[in-house]
Amino acid sequence: MLSDLPFTLSALRDAYAAGTRPEAVIAEVFARLDAANDPGIFLHADREAALAAARALGAPDGRPLWGIPFAVKDNIDVAGMPTTAACPEFAYAPEADAFVVARLRAAGAIVIGKTNLDQFATGLVGTRTPHPVPLNALDPAIVPGGSSGGSGVVVARGIVAFSLGTDTAGSGRVPAALNGIVGLKPTLGALSASGMVPACRTLDTISVFALTVADAWAVHSVAAAPDPEDAYSRAFPAQPLSPVPPRLTIAVPDAASLQTFGDRVQEAAFRATLTELRTRGVEIREIDFTPFYDVAAMLYEGAWVAERTAAVGARLTEAPETLHPVTRSIVEQGLALTAVDAFRGIYRLAELRRHCTAAMAGIDLLCVPTIPCFVTREQDAADPILHNSRLGTYTNFVNLLDMCGLAVPCGTREDGRPASVTLLGRAGQDGLLAGVAGLVEAGPLGATGWHRPAAPVPAPEPVPGEVAVAVCG
Amino acid sequence: MLSDLPFTLSALRDAYAAGTRPEAVIAEVFARLDAANDPGIFLHADREAALAAARALGAPDGRPLWGIPFAVKDNIDVAGMPTTAACPEFAYAPEADAFVVARLRAAGAIVIGKTNLDQFATGLVGTRTPHPVPLNALDPAIVPGGSSGGSGVVVARGIVAFSLGTDTAGSGRVPAALNGIVGLKPTLGALSASGMVPACRTLDTISVFALTVADAWAVHSVAAAPDPEDAYSRAFPAQPLSPVPPRLTIAVPDAASLQTFGDRVQEAAFRATLTELRTRGVEIREIDFTPFYDVAAMLYEGAWVAERTAAVGARLTEAPETLHPVTRSIVEQGLALTAVDAFRGIYRLAELRRHCTAAMAGIDLLCVPTIPCFVTREQDAADPILHNSRLGTYTNFVNLLDMCGLAVPCGTREDGRPASVTLLGRAGQDGLLAGVAGLVEAGPLGATGWHRPAAPVPAPEPVPGEVAVAVCG
Repeated sequence: MLSDLPFTLSALRDAYAAGTRPEAVIAEVFARLDAANDPGIFLHADREAALAAARALGAPDGRPLWGIPFAVKDNIDVAGMPTTAACPEFAYAPEADAFVVARLRAAGAIVIGKTNLDQFATGLVGTRTPHPVPLNALDPAIVPGGSSGGSGVVVARGIVAFSLGTDTAGSGRVPAALNGIVGLKPTLGALSASGMVPACRTLDTISVFALTVADAWAVHSVAAAPDPEDAYSRAFPAQPLSPVPPRLTIAVPDAASLQTFGDRVQEAAFRATLTELRTRGVEIREIDFTPFYDVAAMLYEGAWVAERTAAVGARLTEAPETLHPVTRSIVEQGLALTAVDAFRGIYRLAELRRHCTAAMAGIDLLCVPTIPCFVTREQDAADPILHNSRLGTYTNFVNLLDMCGLAVPCGTREDGRPASVTLLGRAGQDGLLAGVAGLVEAGPLGATGWHRPAAPVPAPEPVPGEVAVAVCG
Repeated sequence: MLSDLPFTLSALRDAYAAGTRPEAVIAEVFARLDAANDPGIFLHADREAALAAARALGAPDGRPLWGIPFAVKDNIDVAGMPTTAACPEFAYAPEADAFVVARLRAAGAIVIGKTNLDQFATGLVGTRTPHPVPLNALDPAIVPGGSSGGSGVVVARGIVAFSLGTDTAGSGRVPAALNGIVGLKPTLGALSASGMVPACRTLDTISVFALTVADAWAVHSVAAAPDPEDAYSRAFPAQPLSPVPPRLTIAVPDAASLQTFGDRVQEAAFRATLTELRTRGVEIREIDFTPFYDVAAMLYEGAWVAERTAAVGARLTEAPETLHPVTRSIVEQGLALTAVDAFRGIYRLAELRRHCTAAMAGIDLLCVPTIPCFVTREQDAADPILHNSRLGTYTNFVNLLDMCGLAVPCGTREDGRPASVTLLGRAGQDGLLAGVAGLVEAGPLGATGWHRPAAPVPAPEPVPGEVAVAVCG
């Protein structure tokens, strides 16, 4: 039964190999979307275009994403669909696909539509939209997460196999934690930003949501390529999913600096994951996270707000009523900042980066809870800034420090909510993150109820003169 | 006769090996300074401290700069001497040497004093100082160059063996061209900025003036080291002076984009140097320099002025009368710039950098005239902005593009003025610049009349399967 088919890459490939037609998969996508009955997920979905794309694929031809349905956050261009950034008055009709979308389509993937977001990608709650708010896939009382809210929910519900989000402050990771899926935030510049509406242009990246690390990595591998048209594009050598090195040291916040805002269950879940990592032979080193929090504070309290102001442009002064009130209240703070403030912020970041670099001496990766606690729709409505800020505790500093991140589901908390940690690496270590994630990836696939496919853990490489300790899971 | 001793490293080392005492050299330094009769060179000189340092050296001990006298631009700290940045009201008494000064002193070098500069290092003429303007060492009708004016003149007159300048827009190169000496502007971060008064903190570097490339490189080799206290310090592998590669492609401005403001003699001198490079086996490739000029324009017309505003700080609004009027007129422009302007400038630079990178595809180095033309004191007085800007034609873009530069004397123009080109390389290619400079380095040693010592040109490395063409000079 197609209605039972898990939308993972491996299951879809098996179905196609067995003769299933992509047109049937697209029909099933829309059947699932109808069944979800959530008008907040997509701002634009095009069944006919998707069916036409499916028909045009012809016979399976071995392309890595042949027939794979995906969704695109509505601040990324898809030719033939409007781009709005959740600001209807901002809408334009892009002439071409964003660079990354074009690569995914060229690999055979099929766009279903454009997903809802916190307007202009400013937010981590997913509720700052003039449209209906997408419902959290696991618990409608909880915020869906943002800013890539629709892209997180649509994957967690199994409607598409993967989605594109964007990530400046955590928008590609927070929805993953809140919906029990994987969120890959690549190193800045690895995925071209051509055809993406900027939030903070020096800190933005497109991101990938999927049900499993293997799927997210497969999508990333197709999407990543140097783009001569994007001034912030960077060339990284082609990366296989790295094997777990035989000696691995991961730093985590020490007891004094771990922040969960009173969520003891979240703390317990995080410690359980660390225990699992230790069991797998990883050395866990507790460090003071203060320098990282100091960096995080700069993203909204410092000069970088002005990047959002620059991105919104004249709208802020000429048509402020077209902005979501919370978005507007944040972005207009940038109008008061001077160029001297901006450069002083840049200097301070350089100083703080030095402290963070020192804190990471001898460390391979960091591991943090993806979110410190859960936030209800009610809490968000009562204070739309405070709880949003809390959600960024472990994400806001990452792009400012030019690190890559991978939010990984790691089972279920004792209260039934999804557990998630984020592995963080230095620029270019994306492949290592994806490899190490296999040590902890566990639990339900979003809200789908599907069985998690076995993740192949790459074999550790023995160091000379030493016998590798086999790590199985 | 000590009065005839050239103050090059080799001549001083020979003299010390033959028994000369550093106290005698210091006495000679001050005799030469007295003879120069130019109160504009030093803002502070300390004969007794230098003599004490000379006495304290004891017997020669093999340290690389043992007994070598040098001068320090007065925006770099020397313990025991005030730092003023040519703004008397700004004066403070530093408790410690700047990182670089400490390294040079530890290697045996002796500080003579602090040299005059364009106030707060803002200028390329050397005349924007409330003190007497240092006289150009070769022709008092010509500006001395800046902002490191005193540091350029004091080396060109043979009063010290080398000096420290700083370079943000060309301050470490323009005085070299105007006084017939070598100006080494290292890759940003190679020399620590700890203990340096910032101009544009993201673009500043300490620089080295000397009579020969070999001397400048020897000083740089001692001064360069990672500094954990400087957020902008970068670690570069230890660099020997690189041999000239057997195949070398150097790009130069094409005929349409070479700017000399009508100075045909400068153009002829530049072309003569290119002919010399071709004779030595270098491939010269003419390229359109427009993208580089577009970058250059951003330094004073774009957001980076606000870095100077930030550096001057509250003085600009609270005590503007303490600033040089030209300096003030420039720096106060930064008060009008917003943080949005700053980030838009940063985005535009990223775009332009992309064009420059493309223009440099397949290119090893760039070669430009260090200055497009000469500027007289009279011209500068008549229009203190225009002629200053012209002097930055080939220097303003360099630090914004994270390139290193080496200004090299290459003989005498047909009208008797010094000829100078600047070799420019990508970040970290400083050693290659110093090696290649040997192909063109020629002519008088500043205003000294001393004989130029033979510069050892490193042997070219043969590529496999090929016989290297010997390049002798």
